[in-house]
Amino acid sequence: MTSSSSDRPGEFELIARLFAPLATAPGAFGLTDDAAIITPPAGEELVVTTDALVEAVHFLRSDPPASIAKKSLRMNLSDLAAKGAAPIAYLLALSLPDATDMAWLKTFAHGLGEDQREYGVSLIGGDTTRTPGPLTLAITALGSVPRGTMIRRAGAKKGDLVFVSGTIGDAGAGLAILKGEGVAIPDAVRDELVARYREPSPRVSLGPALRGLASAALDVSDGLLADLGHIAETSQVRIEVDAGRIPLSPALLALRGNDLAALVRAATAGDDYEIAFTAPERARSAILKIAAEACVPVTEIGRVQAGHGVALLDSAGHEIAVPRTGYVHF
Amino acid sequence: MTSSSSDRPGEFELIARLFAPLATAPGAFGLTDDAAIITPPAGEELVVTTDALVEAVHFLRSDPPASIAKKSLRMNLSDLAAKGAAPIAYLLALSLPDATDMAWLKTFAHGLGEDQREYGVSLIGGDTTRTPGPLTLAITALGSVPRGTMIRRAGAKKGDLVFVSGTIGDAGAGLAILKGEGVAIPDAVRDELVARYREPSPRVSLGPALRGLASAALDVSDGLLADLGHIAETSQVRIEVDAGRIPLSPALLALRGNDLAALVRAATAGDDYEIAFTAPERARSAILKIAAEACVPVTEIGRVQAGHGVALLDSAGHEIAVPRTGYVHF
Repeated sequence: MTSSSSDRPGEFELIARLFAPLATAPGAFGLTDDAAIITPPAGEELVVTTDALVEAVHFLRSDPPASIAKKSLRMNLSDLAAKGAAPIAYLLALSLPDATDMAWLKTFAHGLGEDQREYGVSLIGGDTTRTPGPLTLAITALGSVPRGTMIRRAGAKKGDLVFVSGTIGDAGAGLAILKGEGVAIPDAVRDELVARYREPSPRVSLGPALRGLASAALDVSDGLLADLGHIAETSQVRIEVDAGRIPLSPALLALRGNDLAALVRAATAGDDYEIAFTAPERARSAILKIAAEACVPVTEIGRVQAGHGVALLDSAGHEIAVPRTGYVHF
Repeated sequence: MTSSSSDRPGEFELIARLFAPLATAPGAFGLTDDAAIITPPAGEELVVTTDALVEAVHFLRSDPPASIAKKSLRMNLSDLAAKGAAPIAYLLALSLPDATDMAWLKTFAHGLGEDQREYGVSLIGGDTTRTPGPLTLAITALGSVPRGTMIRRAGAKKGDLVFVSGTIGDAGAGLAILKGEGVAIPDAVRDELVARYREPSPRVSLGPALRGLASAALDVSDGLLADLGHIAETSQVRIEVDAGRIPLSPALLALRGNDLAALVRAATAGDDYEIAFTAPERARSAILKIAAEACVPVTEIGRVQAGHGVALLDSAGHEIAVPRTGYVHF
């Protein structure tokens, strides 16, 4: 980690000591230098993305520090996965309030370490600074794809099918539970939904397998409809989603049932970190095979049309009025 | 820029429109995707670094937004330069307080645009979010070097000479002026020192030219002595600096004179963004030639010894007691 001076070796060196073991890549130089070296594998190009997280906006102060660490990293790994990229490394810029104690940081670093092993990535650089405000994190993640194969937002074509991985709305429900909803539901249901909010599962196996099949893709972070709206806008098409086909988890069904209001709420909640993508009809069977191999459910939920925008359709094919398509971070 | 939902297109789209023109690299896709593509030139590897800046810690709220933008970018370009890397691109994670208005952001983006043209880099990704706290920025910058030529912190050897570019202590004096020092000094002096604080000059020509000559290098951000201390620690050597050889600008001399207290203060102030480096004696003439070609003054200020730590020596060669070696950000 750079920054910080040598005059308060206690605090600074303790932080450096916490994060140095995470710098497992040779080009990271154990975080003892000002920059790291990274080279894509032969024939590949690097894919790079960044996300900032702010306490009270993207996570709760009461969230366990290991979960905050994992969520921050996984949000970025999810971006890479949705682009078809295999993750390699990441950098972490950390702005810490005065009140942050070493025990908190230790658990935070431990959580990162666990995820590094799970996802095969290395910390390759960072910066730690003090802030008079809320805890703020920025992670920049790097992955790679064979040249020219990154899955773009642009590329969806009229007639393509629309798919989404996993289940939708769980993380939003988990956040609602942390804010007081569903006090009467069984603990197992609560725990499952809260876990989906705190520690999403980036689809790192599925994403790279979709290269050459998906015509457009992104990860669902703002909300299923909002994010499909991004694909529609960039691809200059219209995306229609059948509300009844949106995959809901048993836990979410136990909390809210499956009426239209629950479906709309799921489709407009954020933080799912599933992959939403489009693909030509001829790719359907290959996609389902890949999903089975990656052990990730993939559900066909709609179709790409000429036009613009995103529409949620009821069982009669009529458009459902949706007050807002996603979660507003900003 | 990712994040943010489509439901408040006014604010979000305005921000996207401000930053999109900065995405001049083809792999940035005009910031319309979730990730960017970057490939180092043939035979080169990427060098990557990140820095976080927090209002009231790294810059003042009253600093002009264009200066804040430029300083953030230049801090990172300075890191790359000191490693011998030519800059290519950067990502920006921006956490904005509610009170940030579009005029502020417009000037900020304009400042970035000016610097992109000056330094030949492109914005290739970003994330904008809201914060209840102070304005916080994280920039990740990417550059490249021919394989294996990044100048490390490790590498200084006993007998090497110690050099520094430009002049030292100006930025620290600029900050002191903004906080009330030197009200009686001429405006031109004030303006020059404040400009050095607000808009440092990363040594982008000098740095890459030092590849193969410098045995170790870094940019002076924490303070000359603190940063040479980093080289000493990583290279496992002792660095001795002759106080009287530390280059001071005419503006700094006008403000504070050149007594020992002024020299110590300069050597322990932060934010210089000059390159401090070591090199074998046989490289001296080549270094001075390169400095002349890059139009950047380079001054020999000391020598690498066996041992550890960094020492500031008076004209008799005795060590001067220095209460602290650098500026404490954290």
